[in-house]
Amino acid sequence: MSVREMVVQPAKKAKLASRELANISSQQKNEALLIIARQLENSTEEILKINQEDMERGKQNGLSSALQDRLKLTEERIASMAEGLREIVQLEDPIGEVLEMGKRPNGLKVGRTRVPLGVIGIIYEARPNVTVDVAGLCLKAGNAVILRGGTNAFNSNQILTEIISRALKAAGLPEASVQLIQTTEREAVDILIGLNEYLDVLIPRGGEGLINKVVRESSVPAIQTGVGNCHVFVDASADLEMALKIVDNAKTSRPAVCNAAESLLIHKDIAGEFLPRISQKFIDRVELRGCEKSRKIVPELNPAQESDWGKEYLDYIMSVKIVESLEEAINHIFQYGSMHSEAIVTRDYARANQFLDEVDAAAVYVNASTRFTDGGQFGLGAETGISTQKLHARGPMGLKELTTTKYIIRGQGQIRE
Amino acid sequence: MSVREMVVQPAKKAKLASRELANISSQQKNEALLIIARQLENSTEEILKINQEDMERGKQNGLSSALQDRLKLTEERIASMAEGLREIVQLEDPIGEVLEMGKRPNGLKVGRTRVPLGVIGIIYEARPNVTVDVAGLCLKAGNAVILRGGTNAFNSNQILTEIISRALKAAGLPEASVQLIQTTEREAVDILIGLNEYLDVLIPRGGEGLINKVVRESSVPAIQTGVGNCHVFVDASADLEMALKIVDNAKTSRPAVCNAAESLLIHKDIAGEFLPRISQKFIDRVELRGCEKSRKIVPELNPAQESDWGKEYLDYIMSVKIVESLEEAINHIFQYGSMHSEAIVTRDYARANQFLDEVDAAAVYVNASTRFTDGGQFGLGAETGISTQKLHARGPMGLKELTTTKYIIRGQGQIRE
Repeated sequence: MSVREMVVQPAKKAKLASRELANISSQQKNEALLIIARQLENSTEEILKINQEDMERGKQNGLSSALQDRLKLTEERIASMAEGLREIVQLEDPIGEVLEMGKRPNGLKVGRTRVPLGVIGIIYEARPNVTVDVAGLCLKAGNAVILRGGTNAFNSNQILTEIISRALKAAGLPEASVQLIQTTEREAVDILIGLNEYLDVLIPRGGEGLINKVVRESSVPAIQTGVGNCHVFVDASADLEMALKIVDNAKTSRPAVCNAAESLLIHKDIAGEFLPRISQKFIDRVELRGCEKSRKIVPELNPAQESDWGKEYLDYIMSVKIVESLEEAINHIFQYGSMHSEAIVTRDYARANQFLDEVDAAAVYVNASTRFTDGGQFGLGAETGISTQKLHARGPMGLKELTTTKYIIRGQGQIRE
Repeated sequence: MSVREMVVQPAKKAKLASRELANISSQQKNEALLIIARQLENSTEEILKINQEDMERGKQNGLSSALQDRLKLTEERIASMAEGLREIVQLEDPIGEVLEMGKRPNGLKVGRTRVPLGVIGIIYEARPNVTVDVAGLCLKAGNAVILRGGTNAFNSNQILTEIISRALKAAGLPEASVQLIQTTEREAVDILIGLNEYLDVLIPRGGEGLINKVVRESSVPAIQTGVGNCHVFVDASADLEMALKIVDNAKTSRPAVCNAAESLLIHKDIAGEFLPRISQKFIDRVELRGCEKSRKIVPELNPAQESDWGKEYLDYIMSVKIVESLEEAINHIFQYGSMHSEAIVTRDYARANQFLDEVDAAAVYVNASTRFTDGGQFGLGAETGISTQKLHARGPMGLKELTTTKYIIRGQGQIRE
């Protein structure tokens, strides 16, 4: 079979499956999710064996230890995937909700009802648990899903989707509701992003290269995710103890994720006190790259280049800039931010609100770490990614973000004049 | 100035203007809209003179009489544009609405607030009134807008946007909130659809060629609008008098618009009675192109080709197919429909609901004409187009569809474990 066929065939099947899925009861969907969870647990040994082979191959191919850790499955991780599915069962089914039903002057009853998006394509990288998480969320919201996972995790993803398909069949749902693209050829991505006839939405989860490619080339409507050049602004009136804790947490609690902070903005009035303290706290742990003014206060800082302001390090590195005012901080974020997560630390009521109003990002914080931008933390349950675009979904995407609406109109013979 | 600069410059200015607009009060926006309305009325003579020149040029270039009619402005049409703006003033400002604010277990207050999209690009064709309608809606929702109108209406659009800019200035709003691209070069569209750095959303309003181009090539997230291959299905249990009225209205009340019906599906049980009646009603008015079965009942029908089923005629032509069942009708719509507006005429409760549930379209009707798919008819006020995609907006787009949300999080020093 050609690579093209290996992408188009599952997409066609997914479209047919999506029609069936759209009108399946919550009960049946929940039963299917529980069966998948049980089958995953029952297949733990088989999954671990195949994942071990992926790991061996990865090591031989020189996979970094960070990526090895993402790829690795353990008994606990499989149990946690199953638990994730059981949590999705607990979430309310968004499908069928009726919104804004009302009667027009001519007697027409016009409203909207929440329906699945249809077929969702997900392109992702190393972590095989994503396979189960997104399959569960897409199913609960009544969507079929086409998965394109990372090459290194191919066999792990394959066994996971096989188990899911078997479970779907046992539950009486279309097997084609969840399908993995059965080739690791790069060309498959080029084909997938052109299938707007079959796919309703594409969610790329991965590095900037992948996301930019999808944004530029995809004919399928896409939701940009993930790139996070997040700032913490320590205002003149900040509680400096609180600011130290927040900056530390935002930078170091998990530097490789998109909601980690990459840049520290400090109001000039407290820079003389705060900057030495944070650089002391970060000593031997985080490399700070400072603007000129900050290097006058702490000369040991490495100098920041213009290119540093826009960078998502995903590492123990942070740029530092001293600003004259709240306005300069907001302008800097406007210029260099990626509209992901932005925080101010302040005691000032008016400035807190100004920051919330004027900073244009998926999540804007007062006195809290940017690391909270996450479906679970926001109370949405699991998430399929964090949207950094403005269309359709912004911020962590839960079940509702995997749905759309349609207008339903009940008449008694009305015609338009 | 190069064509590129003639597109990039306004886009840059629009992005800056959008920052200011995002935090302007409803009162100020409404005052600006009222000033624009007044200035349009006061400039009626000037507008008509320039529109007359566009009309002369159009005639010389062989513009069809239908397009001439779309292009033409009259005193009444200008008054009606001004009236449209006053109606937008009456609509509730969607910006600032707070959604789903709640407290998380760790004390974080997490909610969403409705904010403008930012910069909206609109590509449209002949009608200059669109210039004023969409400018008004975008402004009310706090967005800056870049307009790319049709070549034939260029001078009319230019005077209208000049008047709007002057009024914005008088109202203390950024002049660059509404800008027309000052060139009719086709290349300008190619440039515009690549400016995802400055534009947040693109709405193409026009023919299939334009929409397909945008879907395939745009790096700016786009909302597909308008292509409507709409069906009316006359079920076995239909009130045939009602069906005759609805089919006639859906086809002939305004055949050139996207919510007009293009295809008639008739249940076999009543085809023998209904088809002769509708073809009698349409005689000399609408060309019916029938399937084989329908030509056995009314042999005078022209034969429908396979290509007819997917066609948006936008004319006094309608395809006719006799179906065995409701399921066959739904399958036919799934295969050939454009997910715009679909109607069933029936007396049967279960079948009405099955049609509403299973047909996947922006608007699904029972016992009413598809012609109602319209922002005004649905009670949204004016509209910026009718979305036929599933992402972000579906169906007529009013003010809310020109907004997005951002998460706002108020903490007291929370960090993530």
